[in-house]
Amino acid sequence: MREDDLLNLIRKELPLDDSSVIVGSGDDCAVVQMEQKNLVLKTDATIENIHFTPEDDLSDVGWKALCRPISDFAAMGAIPQHALITVAAPTSWKKENWLQLARGFGKAARTFKIVVIGGEMARSPGGLFLSITITGSAGPWTALRSYARTDDLICVTGKLGGSLKSRRHLTFTPRLAEGQWLAKQRFVHAMMDLSDGLGSDLPRLARASDCSFILENEKIPCHPGCSIDEALSDGEDYELLITVALDQWPYIQKEWHDHFPNLSLTCIGRILPPNNASSPLPSGFDHCSSNKRDN
Amino acid sequence: MREDDLLNLIRKELPLDDSSVIVGSGDDCAVVQMEQKNLVLKTDATIENIHFTPEDDLSDVGWKALCRPISDFAAMGAIPQHALITVAAPTSWKKENWLQLARGFGKAARTFKIVVIGGEMARSPGGLFLSITITGSAGPWTALRSYARTDDLICVTGKLGGSLKSRRHLTFTPRLAEGQWLAKQRFVHAMMDLSDGLGSDLPRLARASDCSFILENEKIPCHPGCSIDEALSDGEDYELLITVALDQWPYIQKEWHDHFPNLSLTCIGRILPPNNASSPLPSGFDHCSSNKRDN
Repeated sequence: MREDDLLNLIRKELPLDDSSVIVGSGDDCAVVQMEQKNLVLKTDATIENIHFTPEDDLSDVGWKALCRPISDFAAMGAIPQHALITVAAPTSWKKENWLQLARGFGKAARTFKIVVIGGEMARSPGGLFLSITITGSAGPWTALRSYARTDDLICVTGKLGGSLKSRRHLTFTPRLAEGQWLAKQRFVHAMMDLSDGLGSDLPRLARASDCSFILENEKIPCHPGCSIDEALSDGEDYELLITVALDQWPYIQKEWHDHFPNLSLTCIGRILPPNNASSPLPSGFDHCSSNKRDN
Repeated sequence: MREDDLLNLIRKELPLDDSSVIVGSGDDCAVVQMEQKNLVLKTDATIENIHFTPEDDLSDVGWKALCRPISDFAAMGAIPQHALITVAAPTSWKKENWLQLARGFGKAARTFKIVVIGGEMARSPGGLFLSITITGSAGPWTALRSYARTDDLICVTGKLGGSLKSRRHLTFTPRLAEGQWLAKQRFVHAMMDLSDGLGSDLPRLARASDCSFILENEKIPCHPGCSIDEALSDGEDYELLITVALDQWPYIQKEWHDHFPNLSLTCIGRILPPNNASSPLPSGFDHCSSNKRDN
């Protein structure tokens, strides 16, 4: 199969155009029209034998590769709009492998209303390597990691732990609508997504905000069959971690329940002033640090 | 060496901030302020044993990885502003490897006034894999591949061929100022950069513009020691290919010489109406097609 024919086949699986696209794929660069001038950007790699195995379904891998940076957009309350997709695939790949992967990209892009405006197909001397860049816009509101304040409550969406053994790490739904809603709430101060596990990510949020924290371990919402240690250290939950002004928690809790009745929002601890001793965390908490992200 | 310390060391080599950066690296996403709403995007992968060898100097590899997408910006007459850099490196890498690579990135970013706003450091089960995304802005002018018109002259900047054997493919200077100037000239119609070789890229421009072409092979400007076949098929020249309105060529030629006295602009052929027989090209012309770019 010729490369151009393969490319055309893959493009059929992807949303490639909307009114924002001035120059789409096929020229040296893409050009899009932004509605406003605050541009949000995220790039994220998904690598064989790190983020998935050769046995995993390639449409799940495509879904995951796109949903990981979408989860970062959720954590900023931002709106993802355009994707650039780079695939470096083993030379042994057949048409069906490419199609399966493209279907996963297409499903995620359509679900979250993202247009694919470019990318690259390359061959990989090793296994499959995916690199996705998503750009979009932010409202005037933004909840950053560094916005936690002393006495804030620490809260988390959904349940944690067991993402790998349940294969949820391949099929999770990024909390995009939830993150956009939370970022608009004045009393939600800090927000980030849980990709490396609460035990790694909460200390990062605390460091960024120059504060300490206390966790009430028994309150951590665990997936059925998962221990608190697993909820802290398994990682790849893609839930949202937020801090909320203490006295506004009853209001946020009620509004959350009205807007998202099917997803829990659980208070699990509190932000302390800097230089307090933070809660001890299980030793496995930095198991993901071999992939260090710059943002 | 801890990952955080390594990251801080690398960051020292890179321009990370300017007045456009609202949220830089360190949060879930980056946020930048655009001066206008036309957003230009390009993503590009640079892969060991495809685009460079393990023996190449890593600072040259970093330079090349950033300059390849900058060359695409040149081909649109666009202004590159922000970069996201993903590095998947072999687990054997030491601090010195990372530093060398970062120095190459830093040199290219400073030379072309680009701010690095995020990225990712990952480990690669295979060789080194780099994926760079650059975003920026376009003026009201743009020269696309598809803008060639019947009877346009076909011109090329600089000299072609021998990029690999002279190692120029690692140290080339993207024609950014030249591309921005050319895109502003009303009588320069189509433009693209020569990455896969004139023999591959000119037919692409002709297809995009729905026209044919005739090449005057003896006019092709070859690097010393290179044959016309090599100039057509070696690739990685990163020169600009343009088409110019026939009757305006003397004007463009004179203005070009005034603005860029040290770089040649050579007329090498002519655009023909669609369905004419285009000039035959040497058989090696699609040697680079294993890396198929979507834009």
